[in-house]
Amino acid sequence: MNLDTTREIDNSLSTTLQQRRQKLAELVDTPVILWSGESIGRNFPANRFPFRASSHFLYFAGLPLEKAAIRLEQGKLNLYLDDAPPEATLWHGKTPTREEIAAMIGADRAYPLVELVNHTANAATIAVQNYHTYQQQCQLLNRTLTPANAPTGIDLDLTKAIITLRLSHDRFALTELTKAAQVSIKAHQSGMKGTSQATTEAEVRGAMEGVIIAHNMSCAYGSIVTVHGEVLHNEQYLHSLQTGDLLLADVGAETPLGWAADITRTWAVSGKFSETQRDLYQVVLAAHDACIEKIRPGVEYRDIHLLAAQIIAEGLVNLGILKGNPDDLVAMDAHALFFPHGIGHLLGLDVHDMEDLGDLAGYDTERVRSDRFGLGYLRLDRPLRPGMLVTIEPGFYQVPAILNHPDFRHKYQKVVNWKRLEQFADVRGIRIEDDVLVTESGSEVLTAALPTKVEEIEALTS
Amino acid sequence: MNLDTTREIDNSLSTTLQQRRQKLAELVDTPVILWSGESIGRNFPANRFPFRASSHFLYFAGLPLEKAAIRLEQGKLNLYLDDAPPEATLWHGKTPTREEIAAMIGADRAYPLVELVNHTANAATIAVQNYHTYQQQCQLLNRTLTPANAPTGIDLDLTKAIITLRLSHDRFALTELTKAAQVSIKAHQSGMKGTSQATTEAEVRGAMEGVIIAHNMSCAYGSIVTVHGEVLHNEQYLHSLQTGDLLLADVGAETPLGWAADITRTWAVSGKFSETQRDLYQVVLAAHDACIEKIRPGVEYRDIHLLAAQIIAEGLVNLGILKGNPDDLVAMDAHALFFPHGIGHLLGLDVHDMEDLGDLAGYDTERVRSDRFGLGYLRLDRPLRPGMLVTIEPGFYQVPAILNHPDFRHKYQKVVNWKRLEQFADVRGIRIEDDVLVTESGSEVLTAALPTKVEEIEALTS
Ligand SMILES: [Mn+2]
Ligand SMILES: [Mn+2]
Repeated sequence: MNLDTTREIDNSLSTTLQQRRQKLAELVDTPVILWSGESIGRNFPANRFPFRASSHFLYFAGLPLEKAAIRLEQGKLNLYLDDAPPEATLWHGKTPTREEIAAMIGADRAYPLVELVNHTANAATIAVQNYHTYQQQCQLLNRTLTPANAPTGIDLDLTKAIITLRLSHDRFALTELTKAAQVSIKAHQSGMKGTSQATTEAEVRGAMEGVIIAHNMSCAYGSIVTVHGEVLHNEQYLHSLQTGDLLLADVGAETPLGWAADITRTWAVSGKFSETQRDLYQVVLAAHDACIEKIRPGVEYRDIHLLAAQIIAEGLVNLGILKGNPDDLVAMDAHALFFPHGIGHLLGLDVHDMEDLGDLAGYDTERVRSDRFGLGYLRLDRPLRPGMLVTIEPGFYQVPAILNHPDFRHKYQKVVNWKRLEQFADVRGIRIEDDVLVTESGSEVLTAALPTKVEEIEALTS
Repeated sequence: MNLDTTREIDNSLSTTLQQRRQKLAELVDTPVILWSGESIGRNFPANRFPFRASSHFLYFAGLPLEKAAIRLEQGKLNLYLDDAPPEATLWHGKTPTREEIAAMIGADRAYPLVELVNHTANAATIAVQNYHTYQQQCQLLNRTLTPANAPTGIDLDLTKAIITLRLSHDRFALTELTKAAQVSIKAHQSGMKGTSQATTEAEVRGAMEGVIIAHNMSCAYGSIVTVHGEVLHNEQYLHSLQTGDLLLADVGAETPLGWAADITRTWAVSGKFSETQRDLYQVVLAAHDACIEKIRPGVEYRDIHLLAAQIIAEGLVNLGILKGNPDDLVAMDAHALFFPHGIGHLLGLDVHDMEDLGDLAGYDTERVRSDRFGLGYLRLDRPLRPGMLVTIEPGFYQVPAILNHPDFRHKYQKVVNWKRLEQFADVRGIRIEDDVLVTESGSEVLTAALPTKVEEIEALTS
């Protein structure tokens, strides 16, 4: 565990965990066992990827304990964990004992792992990512688990209950999420500030991730730091930075306890947006601001997505890139030519929170993904409720694979002013992404301290 | 692949690969199939750890191709790899096709993966780390593979042949290893320079790893950056830096093609070593310098380890920490109280090169690990030969788990001046590690540009 358990964890953790399992007990009758998983060898067994505990385990166990399991029943917590062998002290230093950890997380009982086999009867669980641990789950529960995105029987009941809990963040989670947001903001500031000295995407990435590492956090996901923002999941950092380029950085930190942030900003390599870049940036920013403005309990997240589509369509009509009535353009998904992804997603212990469960968390009961080009990518389709944390991340991209696709070219031939579009060639990709908490009365932007306005971003980059 | 294949790779790669498989063909008659492996989900399937190809695959295929296999037979190379689906362009941009990659690596034939099943008869292989790929290996070869550290039959023959090749680095490998060393040097310089501004270990780590990231490299292993150097595999970064502390940093870069560096330096947080710190540092440095001086073809690496032990024992006698004749002290492993690890290891595609093969690569035929406290940790026991790259990393540590252990306390009661030792309480851990190439006539230190002398390190840190 890369966290100082004696210093960083106070009573609030065990109190929080107690509340969480109490709520779970109100929803689930069966005993529940959750496994943490284990680290995986990279190129040889002793050279391992950093350990990341299963998020469902983290939610109820609080700490990233490797090769551990917990059993929850009627609000009681059992911990199953082996003490490190005595010789481990030489290599890894003193680590807390099982009993010390049990005290930190408020466990009622603590056992060596070998005892778990005696406590598995009728237990529900969720299949973990780690294959070796998955095999242990199946063996100890004596049944073949379906994957986490297709649970059945008592596992499905458990999954639904956990979704209910994890959809609304408690105070402890919000404290962690705020820490992740604050460090991510510093990372972006460092990236903006470092751009004038940088010659490659990699150098800006180094300036950003260096800040995350310096705060003893990790990256919640593979950073995107690119002058080719139109490649939506670009995880290469090879391009040199040219005056006139926009740089898109989608970088977020994760706290040692596993809570994530997810921020995107787009700035000019030169420190100064061109007129065309500014024009399109303002369209994206208008969508961003209007979506955040609209967030409050009861609002359908899908409607927020459609609001973004509407504002982007209007903006592109005003700039002469799209032709026609914005309502009609959105109805025919013309906005999605330039905004081919959803307005955002849940955020929590996972950057796409609970995406291991497929759409079970993101989509309300009875809802499924749309076939529409302009809606199918939406990762979240639920009415908002207090305590939900979502991203708002509209964008504008010129994706060659879309804009040169014969089918799209044909379908949208008449509503796009292709000639006019050419004048915006210096905009390949813009995205503005913030993390927004749904509150009782509206919303709170956890990442608001990082500017979005062109002038402020220009001030930070030059 | 996070590398610009068109720009960074020139003919030297395909020429090199041709030479490597030609040499392999001289040692192995059977066809050989090597798998690259695949990336692994972290907390959910789409959020993956960075892909790291199997090192044996990388050695013969050159590029970090995910979900690929190669077949080597009589100097011919077949590539098995699927083209990315067309829709992948939207998310990941344009990626090179199978045929383009085949041309880059000089493959004789290229097939979709599904063809591999028709070309597996009588093929030897090495089991990969990745479990899912391991299952495919067993299935396609129609036999249960033993782990890479315990190969049998044709797989053992192949393993021995690959060890012979990988033990001596060719020019292409050395170019890569030198790049890794150069970036690692910059990372250490950044850490030294950043220490005066830093308040925690994590901040120094951020300053170091940020440089590695900025050069589009990754960390070859989990960095150690700590004021508690006596915890040998300390991968936490939580301690605050105190005036008077020594900081030990063991940080190395890996190039996009997979070649590693491994450097340790120890410096004073304040910029200035205390007298006791300087005294013990000079002992470790003397061992470091003498070991490097001794490296040349034909020398037994074990003797280099014993030379370090001797010099450390002598130095500690001179400082009044050990009592007696250095020869006798080494014979009774008294040096290992303070230097409880080997003098180093092989370095190449893996930071402990070929450690996936257990001791098959590190230990010469018929040799096994010693039972001796002062020798059992040695990872390499072979006569040196030209082209080998090894680390030299002597150290001095005050490990409570060793020094307070009743057995050691009893055995070494009379040869340690425990009272005197207390005066060196401000030295918890010192290590100095460089990467040394065995040349035809002696050695070349790839990491020599990073100073080791106290005065020079003090100049870099203040
Ligand atoms: Mn996002
Ligand atoms: Mn080493």
